[in-house]
Amino acid sequence: MIIIMERDATAENIKAVTDLLNEHEFRVIVHEGDVHTVIDALGDKTTLSPNRIDAMDGVMKIKFIREPFRLASRDRKSDDTVIEFSNGVKVGGANRPVFMVGPCSVEEDYDGLLEVATAAKELGCQFLRGGAFKPRTSPYDFDGLGEKALKYLAQAREATGLLVVTELMDVEDLDLVCDYADVIQVGARNMQNFRLLKAVGKCNKPVVLKRGPASTIREFLLAAEHILYNGNEQVILCERGLKSFDNAFTRNLMDIAAVPVIKKLSHLPIIVDPSHGTGQRYLIEPMAKAGLVVGADGVMVEVHHNPATALSDGKQSLSIPQFREVFTKLNKMIDTLHLERSMAIPNVE
Amino acid sequence: MIIIMERDATAENIKAVTDLLNEHEFRVIVHEGDVHTVIDALGDKTTLSPNRIDAMDGVMKIKFIREPFRLASRDRKSDDTVIEFSNGVKVGGANRPVFMVGPCSVEEDYDGLLEVATAAKELGCQFLRGGAFKPRTSPYDFDGLGEKALKYLAQAREATGLLVVTELMDVEDLDLVCDYADVIQVGARNMQNFRLLKAVGKCNKPVVLKRGPASTIREFLLAAEHILYNGNEQVILCERGLKSFDNAFTRNLMDIAAVPVIKKLSHLPIIVDPSHGTGQRYLIEPMAKAGLVVGADGVMVEVHHNPATALSDGKQSLSIPQFREVFTKLNKMIDTLHLERSMAIPNVE
Amino acid sequence: MIIIMERDATAENIKAVTDLLNEHEFRVIVHEGDVHTVIDALGDKTTLSPNRIDAMDGVMKIKFIREPFRLASRDRKSDDTVIEFSNGVKVGGANRPVFMVGPCSVEEDYDGLLEVATAAKELGCQFLRGGAFKPRTSPYDFDGLGEKALKYLAQAREATGLLVVTELMDVEDLDLVCDYADVIQVGARNMQNFRLLKAVGKCNKPVVLKRGPASTIREFLLAAEHILYNGNEQVILCERGLKSFDNAFTRNLMDIAAVPVIKKLSHLPIIVDPSHGTGQRYLIEPMAKAGLVVGADGVMVEVHHNPATALSDGKQSLSIPQFREVFTKLNKMIDTLHLERSMAIPNVE
Amino acid sequence: MIIIMERDATAENIKAVTDLLNEHEFRVIVHEGDVHTVIDALGDKTTLSPNRIDAMDGVMKIKFIREPFRLASRDRKSDDTVIEFSNGVKVGGANRPVFMVGPCSVEEDYDGLLEVATAAKELGCQFLRGGAFKPRTSPYDFDGLGEKALKYLAQAREATGLLVVTELMDVEDLDLVCDYADVIQVGARNMQNFRLLKAVGKCNKPVVLKRGPASTIREFLLAAEHILYNGNEQVILCERGLKSFDNAFTRNLMDIAAVPVIKKLSHLPIIVDPSHGTGQRYLIEPMAKAGLVVGADGVMVEVHHNPATALSDGKQSLSIPQFREVFTKLNKMIDTLHLERSMAIPNVE
Repeated sequence: MIIIMERDATAENIKAVTDLLNEHEFRVIVHEGDVHTVIDALGDKTTLSPNRIDAMDGVMKIKFIREPFRLASRDRKSDDTVIEFSNGVKVGGANRPVFMVGPCSVEEDYDGLLEVATAAKELGCQFLRGGAFKPRTSPYDFDGLGEKALKYLAQAREATGLLVVTELMDVEDLDLVCDYADVIQVGARNMQNFRLLKAVGKCNKPVVLKRGPASTIREFLLAAEHILYNGNEQVILCERGLKSFDNAFTRNLMDIAAVPVIKKLSHLPIIVDPSHGTGQRYLIEPMAKAGLVVGADGVMVEVHHNPATALSDGKQSLSIPQFREVFTKLNKMIDTLHLERSMAIPNVE
Repeated sequence: MIIIMERDATAENIKAVTDLLNEHEFRVIVHEGDVHTVIDALGDKTTLSPNRIDAMDGVMKIKFIREPFRLASRDRKSDDTVIEFSNGVKVGGANRPVFMVGPCSVEEDYDGLLEVATAAKELGCQFLRGGAFKPRTSPYDFDGLGEKALKYLAQAREATGLLVVTELMDVEDLDLVCDYADVIQVGARNMQNFRLLKAVGKCNKPVVLKRGPASTIREFLLAAEHILYNGNEQVILCERGLKSFDNAFTRNLMDIAAVPVIKKLSHLPIIVDPSHGTGQRYLIEPMAKAGLVVGADGVMVEVHHNPATALSDGKQSLSIPQFREVFTKLNKMIDTLHLERSMAIPNVE
Repeated sequence: MIIIMERDATAENIKAVTDLLNEHEFRVIVHEGDVHTVIDALGDKTTLSPNRIDAMDGVMKIKFIREPFRLASRDRKSDDTVIEFSNGVKVGGANRPVFMVGPCSVEEDYDGLLEVATAAKELGCQFLRGGAFKPRTSPYDFDGLGEKALKYLAQAREATGLLVVTELMDVEDLDLVCDYADVIQVGARNMQNFRLLKAVGKCNKPVVLKRGPASTIREFLLAAEHILYNGNEQVILCERGLKSFDNAFTRNLMDIAAVPVIKKLSHLPIIVDPSHGTGQRYLIEPMAKAGLVVGADGVMVEVHHNPATALSDGKQSLSIPQFREVFTKLNKMIDTLHLERSMAIPNVE
Repeated sequence: MIIIMERDATAENIKAVTDLLNEHEFRVIVHEGDVHTVIDALGDKTTLSPNRIDAMDGVMKIKFIREPFRLASRDRKSDDTVIEFSNGVKVGGANRPVFMVGPCSVEEDYDGLLEVATAAKELGCQFLRGGAFKPRTSPYDFDGLGEKALKYLAQAREATGLLVVTELMDVEDLDLVCDYADVIQVGARNMQNFRLLKAVGKCNKPVVLKRGPASTIREFLLAAEHILYNGNEQVILCERGLKSFDNAFTRNLMDIAAVPVIKKLSHLPIIVDPSHGTGQRYLIEPMAKAGLVVGADGVMVEVHHNPATALSDGKQSLSIPQFREVFTKLNKMIDTLHLERSMAIPNVE
């Protein structure tokens, strides 16, 4: 790290900093500039936190050379992480993009869920998604069926062979959700619920980690780092739109560039969710395409057997016939561009 | 609510919407405009969710007349909520602003904590704050001493008579935290951790609810609504800075106007936290003043017995002598402006 | 428009509003709700500005049914606007996406400019871009060669047949720029320089209007409206990235969804600029692709004969060989997806 | 500056950078780190732009030690700049905060303007503000009376002795505006209209420079730098609110902390504009107070003789009696806190 001292830092201030660095066996070089003294320090930041130096008298700011996420970084692991499921499905690397499809919330009508799952399976999708526990901005909204929903999802898996993705909202539900799900989702609002990250980091299931609506890419990868650090390397990142000053026509602002940026910084797979990312049915197809051409490893889409009666997110859900049409186009585009797929990996430095 | 239909909505689309509204006993008026048909609907949204209408064919958008938070609203309760503690301390209404003071995290050195608490008590502060469980963006940072920290806080309360405020990060720690704390804090990153909101809503302790770094005022009051809805009316809101495109000189962007805006919308007390709000020691004094003159019911400040050795947030912590100086000035300003205090309540419509 | 009165609005307040509306021959319907009175008003807003009503006593807020841009709206003109040049090049509608290519600033070395233009022409690009007048955040940066640059551009047009695009920064340069350029660019920082918009609205040249870095889509289309309103219908919109809270890895945040959103709202063509949109060379290819698959009518790319010596924006410029590689891939993708091009136009409502 | 090379930068890349730096007589130190090579370079950036180095092969990023604004910086001039007018009014430094008061736009009714000016003068305000040329987001809104408005302002100055502040929108109006105004305002949307900045930099009138709604503090001070660099040192900065993701209850988000931050970075005076900053009449008083207690050198307020008939910004304008009430309170607060005024200057580092 590079420590920039205040204009008026005293010789004592500088000495206090270098003494502390030396004590922790950092390699230290001091440059006296015309205005600021700059201290270059190389050493093990797990033994001496930069925050501690930052708080010392006379320190103006600290600049970092390396990114703070280590396990998630391509610096540590240059090959793409590929997540494999028992039925042979693979996510990440050079594998064909996957589709995670289903209603926002699982509802009382099991037949509706099964209808969606059957259609998704027939088209060639790999995952059934659906919420059992729903985070709701208002306490007056429907917040999910809980275990009954998990049972429905498992039943639909039995019937179709799709893998099940569902959100975990609370550490205390971890065992329950693990009993039913193939992939645990950590929702955008919980991206910095560190207890939850720690808990899913200790279990042995793949995790879909959604980017928080106001999270930087660095914070996003640090959230993944929490999971990796606790022992679970099976993390699938998901870009789902950011909060912006313009929400007149879309619910969120999708950061499509985050896909190639993260591919460069990290080895983890990343998918896109244009349903939440835009909140508009008509934008799902174009934004799924945008995600796919920049290298996304999959797409998550909300599909409901009857969006007009959906208890949540109906506005951004596709009906089954609509999804069939969209999927067919996306699939054709994936086929057509197949040979060029590697071009999505940035090669112009 | 007002339902605006798409330009090309059919007579069937319109009929489907009005039928559903009638079925749920809404009062319905239809206006056929030159371009859009507009439907005015008045009824009980707990029996028919607007989201369901929003997803119907031909519906362009829905506009709301009333705010979605009901219990937190001044429409329901025009008098300020005042929260009283057993030792006579009161927060909110016409009461003198309170001070919540202490280190970011409670650390191994109990004597340091006691030193801060003793100084705070002597100056006239009412609350000791300190983290036992710390949310950390990176897994490599110090994450708190847990129960030991709670014990230290309780011990310092014994010694000084200050009330204890500490953050709850996980539902499973609720009983533990309730055993030691006088006020439970819900942190900014957990503002939309709805399980946590529900849990603190069911307990009988005052809650400090911090505004999420990218939360709108409406989302903030809806988060409070979750707590109120679950039975706990003792909520103290806390503005602590928003994420912005400019973080070169401050860690966050404090939304000072949120204080009078929320005073107008809600009866709940609101305090400000200039330590997190700016991340800069030298801004604590001016931004605390700014919060106080616009009507804040209190100030939360990070104070550490030796900021240069603090395990977290040292950069934004005041030392004890610095806090003494700042507090003295703030206190004097409160005294000086005392008779004018009511002017902070907006009276120019 | 729909006028929502304050909770405590008096009968006099309501009467004053309806009287004024009636005086201006609006159709008026008053609904007395449980809490708020709501007034529905239909009439000609050019004779009575909503701002005037908004300022009346007792008025809480006004909600609008129709968008404020009229000439730019698809409501007025459902067919795509196509801009045709004398050499047969067409922008917009079902036409093949165009490429606008060249250095950020035109520099002293004319041969370098010619080299870029020749390569661009050979590949099949249609436009040469280059700045003569440069807006610079700092007064210490290079701000363009002025008329000499315009002459160089015209000379390169002679040599290659490419059309010339260059930025106008000041009304007083209008005639000068019109003498040399085929397309006038209004830069992002000038998107709300209304004098400039008025001036280009009165001239007879196509305009590339860049979206301001913090402009909403509504403000963007209102800026275009200024040009159309002054008589010039040849407006090409350009999405070039928004300012965001995360600029660690990209200079701006490209709003790819803006392309299909604007296609739905407006008949004007829209192109994307991934060079400014990301500020990173390696992101030009993926983000150009993302723009193209969601329906962009063209791509603007910074290309320099020697990026390492460029006086501005070298970091985000491609060298000629790099551009050749990127262009070849983009072109191939356009060919491959050609038959499917219409799919970019959203058809799932 | 500190140049951080890519992980995979070659020895040739590093040599090319150091050769160029040496050629321009920079002092160069190279550190080979475990992952990245870091080059420390000290020299004259006006002879070698950092952008040029940033574009070289193998360069990852550049970090700067010093701020890019030089003339506006306290590093160059530690004393506060004080702007003096011929009638003895002074802005900045230890002088009492000034008030700039008047309608958003000057309208046909001269008597109304005079009424506002007379009231302002009687209360003790120093400046009359009013727009002659109005920037309007929509072409359908009132855009000012032009020269007639300037004449009205000059006439009101004659009658009252107030100094006149009015906005310049276009370089071609500079002489005209200079003929009538005492202070030229550069509006928020023109903060990066560099031609305008250059022009006002060359004239001999004080300038109020408003912060762009999405400008960082660094960009704001660089805009001021353009004026200073062109020879005009009489710049008064004005904070007037930022665009944010939450505009449900306020038009903009006032960055109150910008006042003390800028006081630390720069010697220029800074005022606040709570009318535009919030867009809400009832927030003018509290937010003016907030600005004043953190050290603002003045307040700009929109006052109209009849807000309900104002052609622009009526919603955020005070009537004359409302302003009288607000001003009296603000004035009393300034008096009461007078002795403590210096406390607004941050002294806790």
